[in-house]
Amino acid sequence: MELGMIGLGRMGGNMAERLRQAGHTVVGYDHNPDVSDVSSLPELMERLKAPRAVWVMVPAGEATRATVDSLRDALEPGDVVVDGGNSHFKEDQEHAQLLAERGIGFVDAGVSGGVWGLKNGYALMVGGSGDNVTHLMPIFEALKPEGDFGFVHAGEVGAGHFAKMVHNGIEYGMMQAYAEGWELLEASDLVKNVPETFRSWREGTVIRSWLLDLADLALDADPDLAKLKGYAQDSGEGRWTVQTAVDLGVPLPVITAALYARFVSQQEDSPAMKMVAALRNQFGGHAVET
Amino acid sequence: MELGMIGLGRMGGNMAERLRQAGHTVVGYDHNPDVSDVSSLPELMERLKAPRAVWVMVPAGEATRATVDSLRDALEPGDVVVDGGNSHFKEDQEHAQLLAERGIGFVDAGVSGGVWGLKNGYALMVGGSGDNVTHLMPIFEALKPEGDFGFVHAGEVGAGHFAKMVHNGIEYGMMQAYAEGWELLEASDLVKNVPETFRSWREGTVIRSWLLDLADLALDADPDLAKLKGYAQDSGEGRWTVQTAVDLGVPLPVITAALYARFVSQQEDSPAMKMVAALRNQFGGHAVET
Amino acid sequence: MELGMIGLGRMGGNMAERLRQAGHTVVGYDHNPDVSDVSSLPELMERLKAPRAVWVMVPAGEATRATVDSLRDALEPGDVVVDGGNSHFKEDQEHAQLLAERGIGFVDAGVSGGVWGLKNGYALMVGGSGDNVTHLMPIFEALKPEGDFGFVHAGEVGAGHFAKMVHNGIEYGMMQAYAEGWELLEASDLVKNVPETFRSWREGTVIRSWLLDLADLALDADPDLAKLKGYAQDSGEGRWTVQTAVDLGVPLPVITAALYARFVSQQEDSPAMKMVAALRNQFGGHAVET
Amino acid sequence: MELGMIGLGRMGGNMAERLRQAGHTVVGYDHNPDVSDVSSLPELMERLKAPRAVWVMVPAGEATRATVDSLRDALEPGDVVVDGGNSHFKEDQEHAQLLAERGIGFVDAGVSGGVWGLKNGYALMVGGSGDNVTHLMPIFEALKPEGDFGFVHAGEVGAGHFAKMVHNGIEYGMMQAYAEGWELLEASDLVKNVPETFRSWREGTVIRSWLLDLADLALDADPDLAKLKGYAQDSGEGRWTVQTAVDLGVPLPVITAALYARFVSQQEDSPAMKMVAALRNQFGGHAVET
Repeated sequence: MELGMIGLGRMGGNMAERLRQAGHTVVGYDHNPDVSDVSSLPELMERLKAPRAVWVMVPAGEATRATVDSLRDALEPGDVVVDGGNSHFKEDQEHAQLLAERGIGFVDAGVSGGVWGLKNGYALMVGGSGDNVTHLMPIFEALKPEGDFGFVHAGEVGAGHFAKMVHNGIEYGMMQAYAEGWELLEASDLVKNVPETFRSWREGTVIRSWLLDLADLALDADPDLAKLKGYAQDSGEGRWTVQTAVDLGVPLPVITAALYARFVSQQEDSPAMKMVAALRNQFGGHAVET
Repeated sequence: MELGMIGLGRMGGNMAERLRQAGHTVVGYDHNPDVSDVSSLPELMERLKAPRAVWVMVPAGEATRATVDSLRDALEPGDVVVDGGNSHFKEDQEHAQLLAERGIGFVDAGVSGGVWGLKNGYALMVGGSGDNVTHLMPIFEALKPEGDFGFVHAGEVGAGHFAKMVHNGIEYGMMQAYAEGWELLEASDLVKNVPETFRSWREGTVIRSWLLDLADLALDADPDLAKLKGYAQDSGEGRWTVQTAVDLGVPLPVITAALYARFVSQQEDSPAMKMVAALRNQFGGHAVET
Repeated sequence: MELGMIGLGRMGGNMAERLRQAGHTVVGYDHNPDVSDVSSLPELMERLKAPRAVWVMVPAGEATRATVDSLRDALEPGDVVVDGGNSHFKEDQEHAQLLAERGIGFVDAGVSGGVWGLKNGYALMVGGSGDNVTHLMPIFEALKPEGDFGFVHAGEVGAGHFAKMVHNGIEYGMMQAYAEGWELLEASDLVKNVPETFRSWREGTVIRSWLLDLADLALDADPDLAKLKGYAQDSGEGRWTVQTAVDLGVPLPVITAALYARFVSQQEDSPAMKMVAALRNQFGGHAVET
Repeated sequence: MELGMIGLGRMGGNMAERLRQAGHTVVGYDHNPDVSDVSSLPELMERLKAPRAVWVMVPAGEATRATVDSLRDALEPGDVVVDGGNSHFKEDQEHAQLLAERGIGFVDAGVSGGVWGLKNGYALMVGGSGDNVTHLMPIFEALKPEGDFGFVHAGEVGAGHFAKMVHNGIEYGMMQAYAEGWELLEASDLVKNVPETFRSWREGTVIRSWLLDLADLALDADPDLAKLKGYAQDSGEGRWTVQTAVDLGVPLPVITAALYARFVSQQEDSPAMKMVAALRNQFGGHAVET
């Protein structure tokens, strides 16, 4: 089928490529004229036959909101918009409402797969009405990995990004678990070959996983990770996972600890630990570093 | 080659079976005469040609120590003992010393794989001298999964169980990460089909893993886990991971949080929360449940 | 000076009493006619001379919003409203805006002190313009404890409740720290007299505090806290502290752990631990409780 | 009464001074001849009338063990040793056994108070037999703060240091709670005067405490703690608290989080976060800092 793709960056560009390989017609639009198939949103609309399907693959937040606003004006009743970015599930509900006022459908699609998705397929978690999701199934089928897994229609609008948010929260926890285990192995004199230990875990263990395969690749290239700084950004989903859980009264000790470890890694120095140092100095005359 | 196997429970019995399928000769000894091939340790020794290899697969702690003590008397110089149980790495070093005094070798082997190991193979993390490990490689080759992974000679005596201990620590963190994500999905009204969401994650996602496959199996059998109580035992390795990390000054926020979640699950009521309730009542006149 | 007090519950009633003891004129209004000085909001307005000061001491959220809406209609330009409840600092900013449209001033006041405030005074953290705060200083002076401490003008509108929110977050962490220490003492056979140990800490130690004094009172009345259930509610401020910190990228491991301990205490059973139990059963055939 | 004091550093020296001010006779022995009253242990023994009481105030671990060994040889049956250092409760039990073999008594005394103890008194938590503790009560009475609090006979040998260990664990949690609250206030634009906010909390609030008084002193001297590095050492007790709790199956989320925050503060860079960065780079092509 025909699809408009707005945003042809690393993710959007590869997804368009995978869709074309599957025989779909993708008309891409991007601010960067070198990769864009059309020069304007109106031109994109002209190139697509109604009812149009337009996949938005731009950064969450202001960029997505601006794109939704533009599509609200440019599209026609019966068209449908897919937000494949990392929007908050509450934004989805606002966007769906804005578009619904013009008779335009909305589906949110959480997309996992990163740079490996072009080859392996993209796991999709989608939210929206049954009609809209059914209409878009040929696109979802082409994007998803082969086999029984990798796609779920999780619920109404927002459910796709909610599921993807939780997926990312779990991802934070898993990555931190491997990272802690690696640090502990490195800290001990007993285990002589840490990269080989990680590699051995790739088969037969309880902890085998794709992330572990990636850890092996990383250690293969840099056995002590000496080239890296212990600094990890966090995306919105990790924060939203924690905030949503707190709203719902759900304890997330592991996922939150993983998020906080990233926060700490982002700090030049820890204000809290200055206070701890100050207090130790006050009551015990403990030496402080200045 | 020939191997004595002491302890023919769920793990030892299946491992003996897998070894026999690979063409090795296994003479098993167990307190349970229904499964034992011999009626006494001396008989086991007689049935094995020197230099003997004896794999100990009994509960860590007193049972393993008692077995090592018996083998110290029963074996001869040049024989070698493998401890495939879940001993602490410091116990390994004590056991190796006890046996070395009689000229008996020692190898510790952390074994992962659970009830699936018979079919899929057992991941092995071993510690000991190069000579002893090389001597036992035919056994390790038969037990491990096919392919490039699933075996590591991690270092000297203790390194195998150290690596397995860390493996289990990571396992705690990963399981808790999935568990928290599942609880959050269940707590929200937005995601209508939580089991299908978990199933979809099995391919194409960053969090795909064997544990996730098992979560899918569990949810397939009991979609809300309504038949289970939220109670999880902990084995020694989780505790040792945390205690070892504290000894080494290594922060393990995620693995520790996962361990503590199990501790809480084991309590009928939380003493700490009684105190919190008492304090709230004292300063605020907040209602307490009695 | 003259003050209208809306909400004469445990907090509002005691505060009115403390103000009267200091010589102020307080006209109270409450839904409960038994404690109310007037029968309606208009009557309250009539009883106060312009420019009026009205202190709102009702539950945060809908009740406070409704009261602000009513006061917006009932008050006159030049009057000032104090919200002494536990509103979110962002609500303060909305309320201030709503009232400012009618020329009515707004001050937010975080109030600590609980049932002890009538006698000891109420610690106050206030936010608002310098003019409004200065105008209300006689009231603040009467409410606050004697001495140099117990009052801060923390910043513009919202700063008072922000400071109180953080105060409560710290409170969560402190209470949990004492509670954990108490549980550990109780769990050991070594310390024979736990209540006496807590009592002894009230002087000369690094951890002496008012909360510790309260712990002593509680243990004095019920040495093992046997009459209490390990169940602790959480108020909004603990949740907001964590969510605000996540917004700002500030790691709060201790405060969050304390909040999550309350969440867990509120659960009949832990969904997450059901999943952990299910996974253990899948890979290891570990026994589960059903 | 008469007391030998071994170790005249910051703690031991001040304690000797406080005891002398109370009328006791203290003969001090230290490696540093400038502060020592005697030139050798035998001379110390000669100067004290039997039955002797000797207070050991040297670093925990090897120094304390060596001192106990020396006293075992130098003292006579009926004498009693007090270990006022920060020994582990299991070491106490070993030391008591070593001394008991010679008929020498042993009491462990956890001491809190730091540099303020000389003036305010030292809180004491002691373990040992009733006879030994009663015999030493004049010393304890002189050291402890005035009033009803500041001393507990917690149980048999080891109970004193156990109680002090838990005291320090609680201290870790409390300090981190204040530190996190301070960091959050600093991170927000809303609260303009963070030191004044902390100061205001010293009276009337739920979180008032001696540590809060110290925080005020620290902020008074350095309002943004700009002169300090966010680095905090940890002493043995924090680690032992966590390890003991893990042994007993007691969850300590807050105290452990506080300990781990110190571990992280001690690291130049976080190995774990290198692994997280490596994994993010592997699956998402996320930029890493090198």
